[in-house]
Amino acid sequence: MEIKIGVDGGGSKTEIVALDQTGRVLRNLRKPASNYHLVGMEQATQNIIEGIRDALQEESVQGIGISLAGIDTPEDWKNMADNLKGELLVLGQKTGVNFQDIPVALENDVYGALMSVRGEFSGNVLAAGTGAVALGINPEGRVIRVGGWGHLIGDQGGGYDIGRKALVAMAASFDEYGPKSLLESTITKHLGLARVQEIIDWLYQAKRTNKEVASLVPVVVETASRGDFIARSILVEAGVGLGLLTRALLRKTKTLELGIVGGIGNIWGYIESSFNSTVSVEFPTLQILKPIYTPSVGAALLSTIDQVRHIEF
Amino acid sequence: MEIKIGVDGGGSKTEIVALDQTGRVLRNLRKPASNYHLVGMEQATQNIIEGIRDALQEESVQGIGISLAGIDTPEDWKNMADNLKGELLVLGQKTGVNFQDIPVALENDVYGALMSVRGEFSGNVLAAGTGAVALGINPEGRVIRVGGWGHLIGDQGGGYDIGRKALVAMAASFDEYGPKSLLESTITKHLGLARVQEIIDWLYQAKRTNKEVASLVPVVVETASRGDFIARSILVEAGVGLGLLTRALLRKTKTLELGIVGGIGNIWGYIESSFNSTVSVEFPTLQILKPIYTPSVGAALLSTIDQVRHIEF
Repeated sequence: MEIKIGVDGGGSKTEIVALDQTGRVLRNLRKPASNYHLVGMEQATQNIIEGIRDALQEESVQGIGISLAGIDTPEDWKNMADNLKGELLVLGQKTGVNFQDIPVALENDVYGALMSVRGEFSGNVLAAGTGAVALGINPEGRVIRVGGWGHLIGDQGGGYDIGRKALVAMAASFDEYGPKSLLESTITKHLGLARVQEIIDWLYQAKRTNKEVASLVPVVVETASRGDFIARSILVEAGVGLGLLTRALLRKTKTLELGIVGGIGNIWGYIESSFNSTVSVEFPTLQILKPIYTPSVGAALLSTIDQVRHIEF
Repeated sequence: MEIKIGVDGGGSKTEIVALDQTGRVLRNLRKPASNYHLVGMEQATQNIIEGIRDALQEESVQGIGISLAGIDTPEDWKNMADNLKGELLVLGQKTGVNFQDIPVALENDVYGALMSVRGEFSGNVLAAGTGAVALGINPEGRVIRVGGWGHLIGDQGGGYDIGRKALVAMAASFDEYGPKSLLESTITKHLGLARVQEIIDWLYQAKRTNKEVASLVPVVVETASRGDFIARSILVEAGVGLGLLTRALLRKTKTLELGIVGGIGNIWGYIESSFNSTVSVEFPTLQILKPIYTPSVGAALLSTIDQVRHIEF
């Protein structure tokens, strides 16, 4: 039997699957994070390679797809590809698998997200968790990416953006240079702070991750549910931000289907209305799809796609 | 003769002055940065102590005022006070100066900025360079601070905020999820990048400082001067942000004078109009003052003020 291996690696974990020829999941494994900007190249590579090693059994390997957070620039790609190539050759010597004869796709994790929507390299996907990025295929088959500029200047509508804006509102409410908001008390209580000003110590610790800021999203949602106008506005703005990303993508890909992938799906009810307002004037017939596959299965399916970057041995 | 010593320490340099009893500057020295969050506690303390040592000559010391960036929380203050105390005692043994008998004031650098306006512990100051914070004295003589929550959630209208918003606009223009702006080309050219996307590598380097982001302000100003609506809007927004900080402070201090301190003074002409619009409805008679003294002289004058924190020996 031939299998495909898929690796979906992010800032908190790496998921690995082995699929049989019918697409059925034979094995499903988990390793620690593999965003190399967060855990370093050695650790990231090791987690990926151990995942692939553990997914291998007696079957021959037809292809490997690796869909990774943190692979944004050409330099990122080359760094990671060079490291993975070396380690795959070492793993090949130990296991007898000739990785150099197997297609090994390596792309940013939004590519696995796109494949997870319908199992096809087509359409559009909006991948929004801690960050936010949209990807689609234009009528000429070319990949179009919109957003994903990172937490400091992009990622509008992602969880970090929502959490950060809640902290901005909390500070402005406390100092009274912005409108009063319940976020002042709900966030302070949620984080177990004695005083609002302690948010500075909390936020600027070197170990503070974007994911932890994004974990304030449920507090924003709960505060909005209690009728707080500012918390509601932040969620409305997130819907608009994701809507703008989507609208820009749809203009370029001219495809009227959009898969929604990532944690943002959990709060879609709160942002759907402003998202739709932003998108529907121009694209009233857009269809929102829930992905059929997991991102790691999406990654495995990437191995067969010619339009994505493969590691050259 | 008796002298006062003033230390104004920030993220790029430390300025030290010795004043005679009439307030005349006898000596003016410069040491490297002393924001301990940026250079570490050992380096920060050493730069301050060496500055004080070099400012000492034969005169007796009447007071020392230390006005430091990075002293925001009670923990920051205690850390720095404990370290300075130890080092001042060591310096005292070498120089014969009994620092424990001399008032040594230690405060955040906005306090030295307040003193620099008129040499008095009264009124209001808006200190905006890379960050932005406002400080004033209320009718009961109590210190009111507004803003200064740092670059991630505060500092509206400061140089980092202006630079970051220009990068946001640049990304949105490139991906066409926001309006087209000349900032796309002017920033790329200014930073010597071949492609707009290289801004990601530039911005997220571990060594990238807030000050470097703030150094994009002249590019924003130049782009605004060429008529770019987005660049103009960013400057208008900065004026509004500083206006909101100021308005909140004036409501609490009920004093109608404001000193403007820091790099923002260099672009005041571009933000003055929206600043005034924000403040003048409520405070039409606000008087804007240019500081009479330098921040290091302001720091020296702090030594005589009882309402500020002193190091206890």
